[in-house]
Amino acid sequence: MSHTRKNKAQLLNRVRRIGGQVEAVERALLDEVECAKVMQLVASVRGAMNGLMAELIEEHVRNHIVAAPEMALEGEGDGHHHDPNEATDELMSVVRAYLK
Amino acid sequence: MSHTRKNKAQLLNRVRRIGGQVEAVERALLDEVECAKVMQLVASVRGAMNGLMAELIEEHVRNHIVAAPEMALEGEGDGHHHDPNEATDELMSVVRAYLK
Amino acid sequence: MSHTRKNKAQLLNRVRRIGGQVEAVERALLDEVECAKVMQLVASVRGAMNGLMAELIEEHVRNHIVAAPEMALEGEGDGHHHDPNEATDELMSVVRAYLK
Amino acid sequence: MSHTRKNKAQLLNRVRRIGGQVEAVERALLDEVECAKVMQLVASVRGAMNGLMAELIEEHVRNHIVAAPEMALEGEGDGHHHDPNEATDELMSVVRAYLK
Repeated sequence: MSHTRKNKAQLLNRVRRIGGQVEAVERALLDEVECAKVMQLVASVRGAMNGLMAELIEEHVRNHIVAAPEMALEGEGDGHHHDPNEATDELMSVVRAYLK
Repeated sequence: MSHTRKNKAQLLNRVRRIGGQVEAVERALLDEVECAKVMQLVASVRGAMNGLMAELIEEHVRNHIVAAPEMALEGEGDGHHHDPNEATDELMSVVRAYLK
Repeated sequence: MSHTRKNKAQLLNRVRRIGGQVEAVERALLDEVECAKVMQLVASVRGAMNGLMAELIEEHVRNHIVAAPEMALEGEGDGHHHDPNEATDELMSVVRAYLK
Repeated sequence: MSHTRKNKAQLLNRVRRIGGQVEAVERALLDEVECAKVMQLVASVRGAMNGLMAELIEEHVRNHIVAAPEMALEGEGDGHHHDPNEATDELMSVVRAYLK
């Protein structure tokens, strides 16, 4: 069971709020608002995206790395991520994209 | 004239693409896709946001700082940004938000 | 055994190279080099720091989270990090500092 | 006159503090300190580097872009940066490196 299902509602709320923020940037451009204001709106979307990514990283580590041995014993889950090293590879590809 | 009007169409395209990417994240969560995939989608939205911000920064510097003296002479524009120092203050508040 | 001991030499080389890069920034300021050049030197130090952090994050996850159950069985190590959740807390405090 | 000369002492202090922080990371590795602590030290060096870069960016914009017309009139300076567009190109190459 992909861990995102557990906190699905919470993650969906975050993403929908971000969608709303992106629409606010679009409206600001359509309304030819001061570009300093547009830059602030874009900066706040980035902050929200960073918050979402931190949430996903934490869930990935706790559910696919920390809990991997336990899930393997119980035979539960989607069969992919009982290998904590594979889950670590996936984590690191995102971390390195952020830490270029 | 806020500089965003000059490149309005181009900026709007960028923002709408980003909106589409955020919707893709939402769909991935709804479809309970592998969280590694969700993280990659979020990382690509961040990359697109960074590209948009770089575009806005460059426009802000060229139109509200470099071109300020010229615009002041011509009496053109929205009356706000003929003061390049004020425009620099606005730029730096965004830069410092990114360089925390 | 803190995982940094295992790759100590490699990590020390990275940090010493970064120290050398910081000294290069200092020299550039002393020599009143073009500020664009100073900015490039600072940007390259940041790149090297990001590479070092990615290395430390990967080691922390593999040695203190993935290997935690095994180390707990063998009774090896420094007694701190056989709790993968505690190690995840430490990881997330760094991740959230980067993802503000 | 490269703007870094004006605030040379202040910038040098910042860089030397960062040098000291990098040495602290080196000592922590030599002393095999907990890797969570090493990660925190590296995160604080990054914060200091970001502060230095924001300082350099602000100076570059105010001295080589905002002040360019004035400096061109007075015939002062190092002959490079009386072209605010060239100085903007230099600024954007650093901004885009940070906003990958």
